[in-house]
Amino acid sequence: MITIYGKRSSGNCYKLQLLLDQLGHDYRWVEVDSTRGETRTAEYLAKNPNGKVPLLELDDGRRLAESNAILCYLAEGTSFLASEAWLRAQTLQWLFFEQYSHEPYIAVARFISLYLPADHPRRAELPQLHVRGAEALAVMEDHFAAHEWLVGERYGIADMALYAYTHCAADGGFDLAVYPSITAWLGRVKAQTGHSPLQR
Amino acid sequence: MITIYGKRSSGNCYKLQLLLDQLGHDYRWVEVDSTRGETRTAEYLAKNPNGKVPLLELDDGRRLAESNAILCYLAEGTSFLASEAWLRAQTLQWLFFEQYSHEPYIAVARFISLYLPADHPRRAELPQLHVRGAEALAVMEDHFAAHEWLVGERYGIADMALYAYTHCAADGGFDLAVYPSITAWLGRVKAQTGHSPLQR
Repeated sequence: MITIYGKRSSGNCYKLQLLLDQLGHDYRWVEVDSTRGETRTAEYLAKNPNGKVPLLELDDGRRLAESNAILCYLAEGTSFLASEAWLRAQTLQWLFFEQYSHEPYIAVARFISLYLPADHPRRAELPQLHVRGAEALAVMEDHFAAHEWLVGERYGIADMALYAYTHCAADGGFDLAVYPSITAWLGRVKAQTGHSPLQR
Repeated sequence: MITIYGKRSSGNCYKLQLLLDQLGHDYRWVEVDSTRGETRTAEYLAKNPNGKVPLLELDDGRRLAESNAILCYLAEGTSFLASEAWLRAQTLQWLFFEQYSHEPYIAVARFISLYLPADHPRRAELPQLHVRGAEALAVMEDHFAAHEWLVGERYGIADMALYAYTHCAADGGFDLAVYPSITAWLGRVKAQTGHSPLQR
C-alpha cells in the first residue's frame, strides 16, 4: 500500500488522485495542510527536506517528491505513459512546461485569490500573474486547436498534470470562456472513465 | 546532425552543452539571444510557441523544448541516465526541483544582476530571490553532506542540470563558500571527463 502526503484542494496533489483513481490503485492519503505550516514541521521535513506536498511513500519507506516525477513513476507501464521515446520526450516537455510556465502563474493566482485576505499585499501580484498565466493558456489553446490530447493520440499524464490547475483557473481570476479549444479538452478529460473531481 | 537553438551564457542551455560534449555527440548550435527579443520573433515562435531557449531540432524537423526534457531524451541509453525505475524517478525529482525550487530564484537573481541596469526596478526582487535560493541550496547542501552525487552512485543528468546555475550562483549574489558540501560536488562535476565551461 502506497501513501500520499498531500492537500486535497491543491492541484499538484490532485494530479495524483486523478492518476491513482483512474488506475484503480489502492492508496492511503495523509492530509498535510501547507497553509497551516504542516509541511514545515521537523517531522515532515525529515520526510521531504524541500517541505512541499505531494510526497509519495512506498511501504518499504522509500519516498519521492515532486508531483510530476511521481506521476511518471506511477504511470510507468500503463496506458497513461507511452513507452516510445519521442512520445515520452513530449510528455516530459509538457510536464516541465506545467511546472515552469503554467503553475507559477495560474496556481499562484488561485492560491492568492482563495486563501489570502482581501487586503493582503500579495494581491498586488495578480495583474502580472494574469498576464503570464494567459501566455501559458495561449500556448495550450494553440495546441488544442489542432490536437485532441497533449501527446500523441491518447489521454495521459501530461493531460492530468495540466488539467489540475487549468480546470480551476477561474478560482484565480482567469476567464476560460475565451479559450474554446482548452474548454473542449477539459470536457474530454472530465469524461474519462474513473475521473474524480477536485475536492475543495 | 541535431541542432540546438540556445544562448551560450544561459544555464538552461549550458546543460545541453555539458551533456553533448560529454557524450562526444556532434551538434549544430544556433545562437538565439533571448535578451534581444530573438525568442519572440514570429519565426522563432513557429519553432517553439512558448518562446524560450533551449530548443532541440532533429534533422527530420521534429522539435523538443524544455532543457530538462531534452536532457532526458538525449541521455536515454547512456550512463548519464539510469534504466532502473527508482533511479529514474529520483532523477526526475531533482530535475523538477531544479526548475521549480532552484532556477526561478538562483537563475533569475543572476539574470537581474548580470543583465539589468543598476537602477532597474527588478533589483528590488533580489533580497527575496536570495532567501528562496538559499532554501534550495540548503536542500542540496544537506543531500551532499551524505551523498557524492544527486542520484545513486554516479554522475548523471540531474548533476548536470543543477550544476548549470549552481556553479555560477555567485553571479547573482550567492556566497557558495558557506556550502562546503556543494562546493566539493561542484569540483567533482568539473573534474569529469569532457567537462566544458560555461561561455560568458
